[in-house]
Amino acid sequence: MWLKRLIKKVVPDLQRYFVPEENWKKAKVIIAHDDAHHISRVMRSKPGDKIICNHPSGEAAICRITEITGSHVAADINEWLNESAELPIEVTIAQGLPKSDKMDFVLKKGTELGAYAFIPVQTDRAVVSWDDKKVEKKLNRYRKIVKEASEQSHRNRIPLIQPLTMFNELLDGSDTYDLKLFAYEEEAKTEKFQSFALHVQSLAPGGKVMIVIGPEGGFSEREATLLKQNNFLPVRLGPRILRTETAALYALASISYQFEELGCR
Amino acid sequence: MWLKRLIKKVVPDLQRYFVPEENWKKAKVIIAHDDAHHISRVMRSKPGDKIICNHPSGEAAICRITEITGSHVAADINEWLNESAELPIEVTIAQGLPKSDKMDFVLKKGTELGAYAFIPVQTDRAVVSWDDKKVEKKLNRYRKIVKEASEQSHRNRIPLIQPLTMFNELLDGSDTYDLKLFAYEEEAKTEKFQSFALHVQSLAPGGKVMIVIGPEGGFSEREATLLKQNNFLPVRLGPRILRTETAALYALASISYQFEELGCR
Repeated sequence: MWLKRLIKKVVPDLQRYFVPEENWKKAKVIIAHDDAHHISRVMRSKPGDKIICNHPSGEAAICRITEITGSHVAADINEWLNESAELPIEVTIAQGLPKSDKMDFVLKKGTELGAYAFIPVQTDRAVVSWDDKKVEKKLNRYRKIVKEASEQSHRNRIPLIQPLTMFNELLDGSDTYDLKLFAYEEEAKTEKFQSFALHVQSLAPGGKVMIVIGPEGGFSEREATLLKQNNFLPVRLGPRILRTETAALYALASISYQFEELGCR
Repeated sequence: MWLKRLIKKVVPDLQRYFVPEENWKKAKVIIAHDDAHHISRVMRSKPGDKIICNHPSGEAAICRITEITGSHVAADINEWLNESAELPIEVTIAQGLPKSDKMDFVLKKGTELGAYAFIPVQTDRAVVSWDDKKVEKKLNRYRKIVKEASEQSHRNRIPLIQPLTMFNELLDGSDTYDLKLFAYEEEAKTEKFQSFALHVQSLAPGGKVMIVIGPEGGFSEREATLLKQNNFLPVRLGPRILRTETAALYALASISYQFEELGCR
């Protein structure tokens, strides 16, 4: 069965750039640094070409390039867009530090799938621990990863990257969320399990959820106990055993499916 | 709110191996090749240790190792398990050949998320095309990837890897599916869109669905037209633009959420 339907293109397929607040002037926007280089050298754009610029507020505008210099690009704001590709639920992924480049993967794919924020968390069973000197460098790299992934997936917002957080601090700062979940492998192995879907359905648009995911070795018993004491609910994400870097993606895709495809019923 | 619940461990946490049919003898099973090496050298198991062996039928049994030689491992069947971690829907992912190692990624993560089968498809806009001589080698490597991912995610079945398929052949062989979908980026950009969730909900447990995903450049217009003519329904997978290697994961996580977490309602 092939249903007839109306296709209405709402937004043209232009290159997108997130531009910091201070670079928006009345009817004009200034693009600097890497993005200016991307426009002039990678895209080889010329004055007159159009781009989409995203304001930190989430608004976006079609802009026409007026000037390209060695250090920056100037563009006139042509038309504000009325589009949103943001999940109606603010999903914060608190990810126990995984091995090798798996955090990059979680950030890239999690951004594509609509995450609101990421918190890198130091947990008991993490194999890696961050060198103090490298923390800021790592966080800056993460911010770059999520900015680029946001542009590619046509997000309106760049997900927040929170500072490296100790497990206990995570619990202390968790009272502002409407729903707090943790992916608990033991749940996938039990016959009775807390229903992830039931909890997701309890959210209303605008709701805030934090999902805590352990590193490769999972949570220690101490951590699982503390999570429960702090009103985090254990959930399984399907009956199969997922790798740490897949758990966030399952959760985000499911929340998108529930609220963006299935509808809020 | 922390609900009290019964935790019942149904299956112990043992290493799992898929054993081909011919190696199952009455009350005994023989493990050969790489898996025998894995048991003796990587796991350093000894006679008396337990493993879980998966029969190609989907059944699995706890087995006790009786003999370890240089070439094989023998084990007695102790107890047949009554467990299933298989998606109630048979999801076949027809993936347009992507660049670099993205197919490996789709196979690994798709297996974790419960895919039934994968079909590598040659499409118009694929940047890569496979050298005839390398096809069999590639497919064998893919079979190894999905076997290992199946063991790690505690699957009962190893997903099928179909031969490299030309786009037109894919259409010709698609009549046996209950539902045929294709991920169409244009859908994500429109205000009116076909509902992925509506189609998923139309499936009953045991149903067979094929989801066709284009390569990086998407489908050509010719392909999109042919897909529609052959009763493939275009769907968006959320409102954000997903990379080709993320689309299968979104679809599989959503189908798992619908049938394994939300329940069949």
